Amino acid sequence: MRDMFHEELEGINTSLLGMAALVKEALDQSCQALKNADLAIAERVIAADDTIDHTQHDLDARIINLMARQQPVATDLRTLVTALRISADLERMGDLAHHIAKLARMRYPNKAVPELLSTTIDNMSNASARIMEKMVTVLQYRDIARALEVEQDDDEMDKLHRSIISILLSDDWTYGIETAIDMTLLGRYFERFADHAVSISHRVYFMVTGDYAEEKN
Amino acid sequence: MRDMFHEELEGINTSLLGMAALVKEALDQSCQALKNADLAIAERVIAADDTIDHTQHDLDARIINLMARQQPVATDLRTLVTALRISADLERMGDLAHHIAKLARMRYPNKAVPELLSTTIDNMSNASARIMEKMVTVLQYRDIARALEVEQDDDEMDKLHRSIISILLSDDWTYGIETAIDMTLLGRYFERFADHAVSISHRVYFMVTGDYAEEKN
Repeated sequence: MRDMFHEELEGINTSLLGMAALVKEALDQSCQALKNADLAIAERVIAADDTIDHTQHDLDARIINLMARQQPVATDLRTLVTALRISADLERMGDLAHHIAKLARMRYPNKAVPELLSTTIDNMSNASARIMEKMVTVLQYRDIARALEVEQDDDEMDKLHRSIISILLSDDWTYGIETAIDMTLLGRYFERFADHAVSISHRVYFMVTGDYAEEKN
Repeated sequence: MRDMFHEELEGINTSLLGMAALVKEALDQSCQALKNADLAIAERVIAADDTIDHTQHDLDARIINLMARQQPVATDLRTLVTALRISADLERMGDLAHHIAKLARMRYPNKAVPELLSTTIDNMSNASARIMEKMVTVLQYRDIARALEVEQDDDEMDKLHRSIISILLSDDWTYGIETAIDMTLLGRYFERFADHAVSISHRVYFMVTGDYAEEKN
């Protein structure tokens, strides 16, 4: 039988997973809004960002409250501190999905992404969806092998990011400065999104093993 | 006379201030490297980023250790949790200074910033130095009035960021795509730097008053 503390800890884990599900939905929808210049979906993501922020506030308050009441040590304390950090990463990932949706809205009724970059950006959307899915598995099952996989997907994301810059600098780029600015920022949003997922995976890795996974820059 | 716990807490605050001093130095130097295309200074900032990361690791370990040993509640617990969050913001600010230095290095022996944007970027450098200085005062003296001022400086930073984009889109812009990409990212680094300073000021505000300062997007 589990004691009260571990029941509450499990509740906090469940809420973290719920928050991750919100971020996943925001990411999926913002990618869809971007691909199809879908204003309604973009607006939905933008409106939902508050929900993610409130979820974080509530969750953090519960974590701190549990620390104060139960005064955990060792592994339990480490788990709670890690939960605080993961919620901060998730909140930031929600912001980035929100930025992607805002770009889709700003360029509506046009598509924000020009034809020349549509495959690369689709690949970034797919990579971020894959990263998000693995990261949820890492959170849910503390799956260490999967945590290391997220890092490989992040390498893929970095490659895609570099290929955007190459395309922007090639003679094929005929879409002008404004779209180049949009694509520079969009590439950066996806790249940062993946970085936060890597950071969460590192945190879970550390929580489970007590060791730091190899840090990347 | 102060008890052992509060002595250790004060030690942690001193270390946070030390970390802020490292970030301030990294920012000052990266702005200098950018302005003068000074490779040696850029390299110094890039090399110093590891020091900031290690400082964060050590500091966080001490904070968690203190939590485990002393099991603080109420204000003391809130202070320690806030310290963890501030160290994360500072670490990220160090990364952003590092990115600025890397841009200076990448374009060396040329200046990364073209003449047309030099005043705007100087203004951003100055705004970020001002923000950093105020933020240190906020950390050191828990100065709430100053915490709210950081927010105003951040508004100034956002204006400067928008004016970069206007200039990039104007007919005066004759520096091509590559420099436009550089300036888009540079503007974003400064803007994010200021955001983290605002976030630290909010955290101190919350720690002192127990209320959230008005959140901005």
